[in-house]
Amino acid sequence: MTTIHDPNLRGFASDNYSGIHPEVLAAIAAANDGHQVSYGDDVYTARLQEVMAGHFGEGVEAFPVFNGTGANVVGLQSMLPRWGAVVTAGTAHINVDEGGAPERVAGIKLLTVPTDDGKLTPELIDREAWGWGDEHRAQPLAVSITQSTELGTLYTVDEITAIADHAHSLGMRVHMDGSRISNAAASLGVPFRAFTRDAGVDVLSFGGTKNGAMLGEAIVVLNTEASEGLKFLRKLDMQLASKMRFVSAQLLALLEGDLWLRNASHSNAMAQRLRAGIETGLADGSIRGVAFTQPTQANGVFATLPDGVADRLRASFKFYDWDAAKNEVRWMCSFDTSENDIDAFLAAIARETSAV
Amino acid sequence: MTTIHDPNLRGFASDNYSGIHPEVLAAIAAANDGHQVSYGDDVYTARLQEVMAGHFGEGVEAFPVFNGTGANVVGLQSMLPRWGAVVTAGTAHINVDEGGAPERVAGIKLLTVPTDDGKLTPELIDREAWGWGDEHRAQPLAVSITQSTELGTLYTVDEITAIADHAHSLGMRVHMDGSRISNAAASLGVPFRAFTRDAGVDVLSFGGTKNGAMLGEAIVVLNTEASEGLKFLRKLDMQLASKMRFVSAQLLALLEGDLWLRNASHSNAMAQRLRAGIETGLADGSIRGVAFTQPTQANGVFATLPDGVADRLRASFKFYDWDAAKNEVRWMCSFDTSENDIDAFLAAIARETSAV
Amino acid sequence: MTTIHDPNLRGFASDNYSGIHPEVLAAIAAANDGHQVSYGDDVYTARLQEVMAGHFGEGVEAFPVFNGTGANVVGLQSMLPRWGAVVTAGTAHINVDEGGAPERVAGIKLLTVPTDDGKLTPELIDREAWGWGDEHRAQPLAVSITQSTELGTLYTVDEITAIADHAHSLGMRVHMDGSRISNAAASLGVPFRAFTRDAGVDVLSFGGTKNGAMLGEAIVVLNTEASEGLKFLRKLDMQLASKMRFVSAQLLALLEGDLWLRNASHSNAMAQRLRAGIETGLADGSIRGVAFTQPTQANGVFATLPDGVADRLRASFKFYDWDAAKNEVRWMCSFDTSENDIDAFLAAIARETSAV
Amino acid sequence: MTTIHDPNLRGFASDNYSGIHPEVLAAIAAANDGHQVSYGDDVYTARLQEVMAGHFGEGVEAFPVFNGTGANVVGLQSMLPRWGAVVTAGTAHINVDEGGAPERVAGIKLLTVPTDDGKLTPELIDREAWGWGDEHRAQPLAVSITQSTELGTLYTVDEITAIADHAHSLGMRVHMDGSRISNAAASLGVPFRAFTRDAGVDVLSFGGTKNGAMLGEAIVVLNTEASEGLKFLRKLDMQLASKMRFVSAQLLALLEGDLWLRNASHSNAMAQRLRAGIETGLADGSIRGVAFTQPTQANGVFATLPDGVADRLRASFKFYDWDAAKNEVRWMCSFDTSENDIDAFLAAIARETSAV
Repeated sequence: MTTIHDPNLRGFASDNYSGIHPEVLAAIAAANDGHQVSYGDDVYTARLQEVMAGHFGEGVEAFPVFNGTGANVVGLQSMLPRWGAVVTAGTAHINVDEGGAPERVAGIKLLTVPTDDGKLTPELIDREAWGWGDEHRAQPLAVSITQSTELGTLYTVDEITAIADHAHSLGMRVHMDGSRISNAAASLGVPFRAFTRDAGVDVLSFGGTKNGAMLGEAIVVLNTEASEGLKFLRKLDMQLASKMRFVSAQLLALLEGDLWLRNASHSNAMAQRLRAGIETGLADGSIRGVAFTQPTQANGVFATLPDGVADRLRASFKFYDWDAAKNEVRWMCSFDTSENDIDAFLAAIARETSAV
Repeated sequence: MTTIHDPNLRGFASDNYSGIHPEVLAAIAAANDGHQVSYGDDVYTARLQEVMAGHFGEGVEAFPVFNGTGANVVGLQSMLPRWGAVVTAGTAHINVDEGGAPERVAGIKLLTVPTDDGKLTPELIDREAWGWGDEHRAQPLAVSITQSTELGTLYTVDEITAIADHAHSLGMRVHMDGSRISNAAASLGVPFRAFTRDAGVDVLSFGGTKNGAMLGEAIVVLNTEASEGLKFLRKLDMQLASKMRFVSAQLLALLEGDLWLRNASHSNAMAQRLRAGIETGLADGSIRGVAFTQPTQANGVFATLPDGVADRLRASFKFYDWDAAKNEVRWMCSFDTSENDIDAFLAAIARETSAV
Repeated sequence: MTTIHDPNLRGFASDNYSGIHPEVLAAIAAANDGHQVSYGDDVYTARLQEVMAGHFGEGVEAFPVFNGTGANVVGLQSMLPRWGAVVTAGTAHINVDEGGAPERVAGIKLLTVPTDDGKLTPELIDREAWGWGDEHRAQPLAVSITQSTELGTLYTVDEITAIADHAHSLGMRVHMDGSRISNAAASLGVPFRAFTRDAGVDVLSFGGTKNGAMLGEAIVVLNTEASEGLKFLRKLDMQLASKMRFVSAQLLALLEGDLWLRNASHSNAMAQRLRAGIETGLADGSIRGVAFTQPTQANGVFATLPDGVADRLRASFKFYDWDAAKNEVRWMCSFDTSENDIDAFLAAIARETSAV
Repeated sequence: MTTIHDPNLRGFASDNYSGIHPEVLAAIAAANDGHQVSYGDDVYTARLQEVMAGHFGEGVEAFPVFNGTGANVVGLQSMLPRWGAVVTAGTAHINVDEGGAPERVAGIKLLTVPTDDGKLTPELIDREAWGWGDEHRAQPLAVSITQSTELGTLYTVDEITAIADHAHSLGMRVHMDGSRISNAAASLGVPFRAFTRDAGVDVLSFGGTKNGAMLGEAIVVLNTEASEGLKFLRKLDMQLASKMRFVSAQLLALLEGDLWLRNASHSNAMAQRLRAGIETGLADGSIRGVAFTQPTQANGVFATLPDGVADRLRASFKFYDWDAAKNEVRWMCSFDTSENDIDAFLAAIARETSAV
């Protein structure tokens, strides 16, 4: 097979439009050759347990899976009885982007709360956290938060702690969708553990794909009392890789050293460069009519554009509308976004908005 | 990440103990860098459609997925209404090795038939193909066969045609679990199409992982009238890869040229070498007490051993019991099984059985 | 078995606190004795088809089931592929009172819209009716409305027609939860058909239990092109009665003559008497501090009370809080609510609020 | 509604072709009028707990449901984690007559064993009771037996004890489908408790419908440590009756006194009369060519007939083929089967077989 795409073309559509970081690809190659026990009883998956323990502390268990939807749905299922429901933000990936998998595959009702910034609070949780013991109501027994959120925002350590304390006081478990957890850690400047296990998160979907892996996530059980049967659920939910060494190797490539941090810091920095460039342009008049709709705390920039600008920009750079009715767009940066990419995009924004 | 396993160690446990064929790994690398649309709208997945059409004829659709269980369950679900049931051999992977995923994820009842060799026939199908219109009976609306079977046997083209004709005459659809379809094609010496689409198979799980891929299968819809909603089902069943180009690239590496055939022919040949070596040993008395329980038509050898031999052999070569009560074992050969591996194993068999 | 409850005690908690109307009980007895084919192939279920055709027109099909949740979930399931979602009001019974059955049993995602009065509109539907063809979004392929609503309000014929026209123009099907459909028809003063089939409703949950039956509802398919497999789904969803004649007989008792209308008109009238009595009391000062939160268009009255009044009233009359945070309560009238019941309750309200 | 069927016509098709025993109908009437809390918080459901405790001992919990499929599926679901499987006879109602509900609604894989007489044994259980800890295998964590069986046979107390002891020693729970439990108790001549709770059964589906109820079964938890969440599962599986008092009243009518025993003894006796009459006829030559295929231990007679006889008999008496290929039929007796019915049927058998 030969290369049939342009390997130099990049855009701002999603951090999953990017490819594999060279060190991750090298790790796949390093794990190759010879025979290893399939389905997870290999040395790389064993090593992953050690590395995860290094990040999250002793006693955690990591279950590599294929993708983020799988990590979220299988993880939540392990936290809930058949009659359980999950309180989550209306913008959560599990609610808007998983094709109904939580409901259909796991039988979980989502009790959603509207938010401005994709972040739950104890007060927002209380809107749906009620009715325990009433069999007419799917029982709210878990809270799911996303860090960093689908809106590019971040929970502080204290905010997560407050949520977890509140949830636990209500007998609810806490799940974190960490599809972009490395961006969160890099931005917060703290270890993973500080805003997950130490803050009270029980089960984590640890994301690799959006931070330079080919494909690979892990369900990390931070509190083994809050999760049951993951071994079986991962299999019956069709998320068990036979040649698991190659999923684990990718996560090892990210997590053994600091690749996770380098990649995430870089994509965060590129988002900041994009935002700063626009702010400068707005200040000096070279860019007009762009307004930010969310703080830029991780690797995504959310903004509204003048009419027609988004489509003109997309002639050269792919990206998605976020709320087309408001001309709101989302620009995601990735581990492979270059300063030149940002600068070229800024120039295009200036060109297309100056004509407005 | 560095190599922490012995890349020279191989056994006979499973064709998924092996790693990635170098050409597949090269294809992953060739598809890397730059941005590609995620979730399947990339040039490699588009190219895969062309290559599949080359193998199976115009009008087929290929949906890359992560693993074999996913391919089988999602494919079958697309073939059946909610009240559908599947007639299959008791030995089928969907029945014994998928952790109940067909039942739990897809809600499909399996109507199983005992067989000697893992192969259905029209007569065997008739044991469970009845009761249409009776709502008390899950409706038998599909037949699922495995090629090559879980017992290392093969259906001939005529046998598959007879099954498909019979099933279709009953209003049933035909699914093939082709986890080892390349071994079957190599052994039969015919194109894929001859024993799938042309024989009447409607939907195929095309296996890549066991033939040298890292991970990657495809649901191939051979008859678009027999499958509905695969696009949605793949997503909600959590089998949709975001960076799909890397799954498609693996399948392209196998299917664009003849790597699929080279790998499969080789693993088949290694199984034949193993069998022939044992037969020779039995004839000349250097091997004693080994008996074959199935014909060796693909890449697996099934045999019974004298008491205690299996465990002694496993000190050096991994493999699984098939039916421990009968001292029956399964030896699988892979694309990377070498002639030396076989010869060393034969020597060990001779050594361990001569002492019996 | 002897009577061990007080058959003269009634309250305002729910129209399912009441018992069986004598004519319904007589119908059960009339259908008794001798043998009838089970599972629906009996003469009473056949007769029910004729009676339903009399109400809804030729070509409808009625599937008796046990309860309202069963009718809703099985009916909706028959209208949707596995990837379907339902747009409905946040207050809908399927969303708040069915224990997650739509999600867990039918795998259906509910896309809920907040409303003031429990009623959808085309504009409200549009908030969630989007994203067709995007597999990341559970596909909004049906709208479900409740008539009369969970808030005691009514859709007009024109409102339903507008919803159905809009839904159909979007390729969506229309489901009506008619748990209290007789109250709606009685209040609107039109035949069932006018605001269901003729208005564009495709599948109806026809309620019997809350209008004087012991237990019994029917899924009525008004548009046979909008529903598939109900025969099978009713069975596999465990809603198929073996001695179905006794469920059908109850519905016949209601629908052959005008018992449905007498019962519903009576319970509606009792709600009006309650409201009118309070309004009079508020006007003459004998009742204080009560405010209505919804119009009284069927058999339920929704009101806020001064602090502490609800609990004091409940010492003599059972009823539920609707929104305890707002002191909002729900008072339901039933076919057996008497004028004396209302007058005694009004006196109690006056007594308990005059002291405030 | 008026009677439109012939209340004097009875056959041998099924014990659910019969109607409501007059004492059960009287109990429904006795529970009528006035308001009772819905969904089970009524005095009749409370009384049912006491009556069940009288039969099964202190500490049992009874959950009334609508039908047998509901009782079985909800009960089993409460006994198993999501990854659980059930070992059962191939002839079990849950396997052949519930439309795939265990698989689709509860996600439970059935591991079936062929039997001659519908009865499991410890040895038969062992055929499928293996593979714990292996996530590729749905975990066999419960055994389900039927008493009396679908083939009209009975387990002795000792046989059930042996099964339960064996299952428990393997960490498996024991479920009994007691759709015809009263026939079993009547035939064995022991209290319910002797062959259920005292023999080690954990959860029981207690059947009312086939023994003279209109509709009504109960899941009886005999071992509260073996069942979890029934309250929630009954609701989300759509088996929660709003006017539950009328389901409970039916069970009370059967169980408070000895109606359960009178009805069951009678139907058993009628089956014996039928069998004895045929045996006499065979001995004296007035009946020819009829052979019994199962012992007659409860209320069903299984026999093979000469060619054509079944259809000729069915001109006057309804009954079902059991295995049409073998001319095997099933004749079920009910609480309302009269001696005259039997004698008329015997005469018809003699008439139709003497001509053979």
